[in-house]
Amino acid sequence: MNGSHRLVQVPPGVQCFVGDEARRRRRIEERVVAVFEGWDYEEIIPPLFDYADVFADGALQTRTYSFVGRDGSLLALRPDFTSLLAKIAAGRLAGRPAPIRLYYSGEVLRYEPPRAGSQGELFQMGLEHIGGEVLRADVEVLAMAVECLEALSVRGFILAVGHVGVFTGLAEAAGISGATLAAVRDRVESKDSTGVSEALRQAGVSGPAADSLVGLATLAGDAALLDEVRRISTPSRIALDAVANLEGVVTALHEAGLGEHVALDLGEVRGLDYYTGLVFRIVAPGLGFEVGSGGRYDSLLGRFGRPLPAVGFMLGLDRLDLLLQRQEVSLPSAAEAAQEVGGSTLGSALRATRGLRAEGRRVRFAGEDA
Amino acid sequence: MNGSHRLVQVPPGVQCFVGDEARRRRRIEERVVAVFEGWDYEEIIPPLFDYADVFADGALQTRTYSFVGRDGSLLALRPDFTSLLAKIAAGRLAGRPAPIRLYYSGEVLRYEPPRAGSQGELFQMGLEHIGGEVLRADVEVLAMAVECLEALSVRGFILAVGHVGVFTGLAEAAGISGATLAAVRDRVESKDSTGVSEALRQAGVSGPAADSLVGLATLAGDAALLDEVRRISTPSRIALDAVANLEGVVTALHEAGLGEHVALDLGEVRGLDYYTGLVFRIVAPGLGFEVGSGGRYDSLLGRFGRPLPAVGFMLGLDRLDLLLQRQEVSLPSAAEAAQEVGGSTLGSALRATRGLRAEGRRVRFAGEDA
Repeated sequence: MNGSHRLVQVPPGVQCFVGDEARRRRRIEERVVAVFEGWDYEEIIPPLFDYADVFADGALQTRTYSFVGRDGSLLALRPDFTSLLAKIAAGRLAGRPAPIRLYYSGEVLRYEPPRAGSQGELFQMGLEHIGGEVLRADVEVLAMAVECLEALSVRGFILAVGHVGVFTGLAEAAGISGATLAAVRDRVESKDSTGVSEALRQAGVSGPAADSLVGLATLAGDAALLDEVRRISTPSRIALDAVANLEGVVTALHEAGLGEHVALDLGEVRGLDYYTGLVFRIVAPGLGFEVGSGGRYDSLLGRFGRPLPAVGFMLGLDRLDLLLQRQEVSLPSAAEAAQEVGGSTLGSALRATRGLRAEGRRVRFAGEDA
Repeated sequence: MNGSHRLVQVPPGVQCFVGDEARRRRRIEERVVAVFEGWDYEEIIPPLFDYADVFADGALQTRTYSFVGRDGSLLALRPDFTSLLAKIAAGRLAGRPAPIRLYYSGEVLRYEPPRAGSQGELFQMGLEHIGGEVLRADVEVLAMAVECLEALSVRGFILAVGHVGVFTGLAEAAGISGATLAAVRDRVESKDSTGVSEALRQAGVSGPAADSLVGLATLAGDAALLDEVRRISTPSRIALDAVANLEGVVTALHEAGLGEHVALDLGEVRGLDYYTGLVFRIVAPGLGFEVGSGGRYDSLLGRFGRPLPAVGFMLGLDRLDLLLQRQEVSLPSAAEAAQEVGGSTLGSALRATRGLRAEGRRVRFAGEDA
């Protein structure tokens, strides 16, 4: 690519929004932020980059844009917010008593393979509930996720809820680890019961916990499935505790009238290195992938010296915008059409314009009459 | 610095805001954006980084954070918005007729010497008026700058207005260039008339234009100075044209009742490599540096293949926030105090909370009663 091309094209993976697109995004952000503020969450505006070590944990490690700072340290553009918020909650907010309720809205940057067609610059809005009682906090963030989607008039959305403790408990009870664990997890993730069976058979693993793992892959549906989840969890104390957590969450959401938005999906094991409890994805008709996701990560804050449980979720602004377009939802705008204002001289045109602006009107300055 | 330090401290030059700080910033941004929208400017959300070539012009070139993209191109985090907006107006918006009115609000990143104590991550809000008639556009953006500061209840602010044509015209008429031009400019910038005199004497330059350059260094004050500016500009056609532009701007602003906010400063020659006409800085009591600045840059868009005149300004969000604190201005907040909500069970607490939220109330979820 030569120099003149670079002055016209944008690099792969970055975004640019103008006019209506920018306006739509601002409107979505306003509504989501109003929900976060409405539940008494405090905004945090973390730095755009930090020492690369901060992000050195988890699947995003290989996908950070990194560069060398003036003092020779390796820096990285933030690939997500959660690590930064955990660091800040443990450090700068160390004196603040739990629970700490924080929200964010901004960009993250991820190094994407050039042919993936996906964006490397993503806008996310999300929150973290840090240090609260587990069930209470889980329920709060799920109810907030529901309210965010309601505030955007999204139709038919579902929170698909799972718990990593069911899988990890059963895997431990089955005595699998290492390559077998990875293979089983990969097949559960793909909702491939036969594949799970095969991986366990090859490793010579059998028994009730192994049978349960086979069932887990396709264990998704409405809350009535809880009995089945409990039944297959009996081989593991950890799994049964996870089911109790899930049941508490589901019961409270049903009692609050949110049952229609809740489903179970026990085969969701993607964030296993990171999440420690409840996990959920938010899906809605019109979009073939989730519009947001979240879960509990009780071991992250310990890395930064303040071991506290935490739960949170994030919504992708780009995905929400796409979803609203697919569902043909248009958020009403308060903006009136601009009124063209002129005058006999530049100064009198300006004076007239100022008069309309003082009344809160929207104007387009036309200057002196021709 | 060892690893554990990096998990607590932030790198030099980056920022982090929590709670009240973040809320204040959001409130400032809302008001400024409402002014931009009120004058029918369209928001543009440009990419956070682009090919380094895009920023290769001007004083910021050595201060960009750059890194290598996956395709091997040299990329740079945006050190300002104006180059990006010029590129987009020339490229993506090539089919759109002028004038094009665009605004932005976001972060820029600049590599700062570690001991400077200044921030490398800055939040800016600004606009560009592209392709309009010169005087009309100049007046519009100045009036908008006034309205932004009014909207924030800033007291005693002044737009110190100059025009680079006065200096460049007189310098050309005096026949100076190269090292002499640089020395004279440096002394004018420092408001050092004696230094200007000395630099001209050393170069063996004298005459009316040289005398005028000496006078320029300290030519700052209210609009009554225009006669004096015109007088010293007589040796140069370019300078006289610049004065006519300045006079048109000042007259219109006075006629519109904004005279109290306008002052002249002909010694402002900092942005000379970049600006081509009107230049201005916005200052206010309580802050020892400008809170924003702007000017006309008629040659930038040509670099991107669409030669159009343009004028714009930007306000520093960090500086505005500091100024409001110094002036003890507190922007009223619509947010009520959060109400704690519980219930006999988790589900009933959640139901009660949802009820209050539906009424638009602010809540703090307390879960089931102890």
